[in-house]
Amino acid sequence: MKEHEVTDSTFDGVSADRSAKARLRLCSRMEVIPGNSLEEKFAKMKAWGLEGAEVNVPLYGKEDEIRTALANAGLVAAMTNFGANPGNIISADPEEQRLGIESMKRKLEAAAKVGCKGMLYVPLFGTPKAPETNQSIRARLVDVLHPLAEFAHELGTCIVLEPLCRMESTFLSRVSDGAAICRDVDSEGMKVMGDFYHMSIEETDMMGAFISGGKYLAHVHLAGGLSDPKRSIPGQNQSRFVEGFRGLKYIGYDRFCSFECGVRGDREVEIPKAIAFLKREWELAVV
Amino acid sequence: MKEHEVTDSTFDGVSADRSAKARLRLCSRMEVIPGNSLEEKFAKMKAWGLEGAEVNVPLYGKEDEIRTALANAGLVAAMTNFGANPGNIISADPEEQRLGIESMKRKLEAAAKVGCKGMLYVPLFGTPKAPETNQSIRARLVDVLHPLAEFAHELGTCIVLEPLCRMESTFLSRVSDGAAICRDVDSEGMKVMGDFYHMSIEETDMMGAFISGGKYLAHVHLAGGLSDPKRSIPGQNQSRFVEGFRGLKYIGYDRFCSFECGVRGDREVEIPKAIAFLKREWELAVV
Repeated sequence: MKEHEVTDSTFDGVSADRSAKARLRLCSRMEVIPGNSLEEKFAKMKAWGLEGAEVNVPLYGKEDEIRTALANAGLVAAMTNFGANPGNIISADPEEQRLGIESMKRKLEAAAKVGCKGMLYVPLFGTPKAPETNQSIRARLVDVLHPLAEFAHELGTCIVLEPLCRMESTFLSRVSDGAAICRDVDSEGMKVMGDFYHMSIEETDMMGAFISGGKYLAHVHLAGGLSDPKRSIPGQNQSRFVEGFRGLKYIGYDRFCSFECGVRGDREVEIPKAIAFLKREWELAVV
Repeated sequence: MKEHEVTDSTFDGVSADRSAKARLRLCSRMEVIPGNSLEEKFAKMKAWGLEGAEVNVPLYGKEDEIRTALANAGLVAAMTNFGANPGNIISADPEEQRLGIESMKRKLEAAAKVGCKGMLYVPLFGTPKAPETNQSIRARLVDVLHPLAEFAHELGTCIVLEPLCRMESTFLSRVSDGAAICRDVDSEGMKVMGDFYHMSIEETDMMGAFISGGKYLAHVHLAGGLSDPKRSIPGQNQSRFVEGFRGLKYIGYDRFCSFECGVRGDREVEIPKAIAFLKREWELAVV
């Protein structure tokens, strides 16, 4: 493009095209759903209209079993979580880092066997311990994540950074910070998520945050926010979801929104109420 | 509001109402504009249709002179900058911090005398020196800025955080980070700005960044971005402004956008070309 040569059509209707693709696809972490077995929980989720499950349960040795149970229930394996594993990919100690890399590869392989679309990963809980700083950790993280994200992508899954509020981590607080790490890692297998609870504490604008997440946004957690440490299920506190959903619509989000929340009262009643509430919020989110 | 009680009208037409208020109001830093005196520069700016000036020049003892020159030219005092001054408001040394607070108050008083809408402030150039960390600096910054921002607000001006790209600072990199500091400082006198050059390096989405800036966004710097260390004036490199302007329109931005950039060629020709280019970009930014 030459200087001052403006191709007007480049910017026509981008928003409308994108938002037409957006869908509210609900799933849930397992502890939220009533039931005595995964099968019972999956059946309940399907009956309530959820499209997927966040299988935040031990996967090793059970990959085929979980995959089959999901398929039988007609659910997608939306996501799993890295969880507690040996080593630490951002450790300054080479052996500790090596162990962490092995752990993460192993978990990604298990996630891929189950068919999970991605694996949530929190780089650091709490605050960096001296001499580590946000800067040193970020630099190491970007370096180590590139090959791991490529590895994940080859397996058909991805690594999803999970920003947390300041009470849980002071390293990665905002969706935009995670998205910037994704951009620097520069791999199709590197993504970020947004959690309405954490976001209500750390973001100044839900729509702005999700738009900054943009193409890197691969998962959303649903819970009521600010001044509600119980993370109530949507609709059980004052938190609204319209501004956030407007952001999701703007970027054409069609990945999962997952319940990670507490529920007061009878789950058999309250979860369907929350689903209806969220669908209404989604409709109200005009872009 | 009771549980599940959705007031639909709350979310009707917010975007349209906000964007109707948005205007592209241009101003410039002084070194960008040709002229042998402030008066000559102001006259040139007015002739080119700029509405204000970013008076990044020494103010002490010249407050009335600059105010009068601006008034004579029919320009608004859009902004000034804190610049290099004794002390440091985020120093761990009480005396150094006290000196910094005095310096900032003095500069705010000068800014208010000139009639400046705000004063740009960069908390930290480079990287925190151990034992300081982003966390320790942020905590001290939020504490010290509250009374200073209140002081600024009483004077009719404000303090405006300036996020910089990683080559210049690793403390405050994104508009959303600055906006979150503003929210935590919780004063009408605490604002943030966005610079298209720095943003092109650190933000994943210009629109998302400006929406996150939201009500805290008080100033914008205009320069071409990424892989152009010359920070060319808009139109002289490949950088587009439509997505960013879409964000400004969405939040109903009606504060200033200021040239902080280099200019290749004859400024008498190139600056008016850049102004025309920006007006076209603004028109293309449909929300």
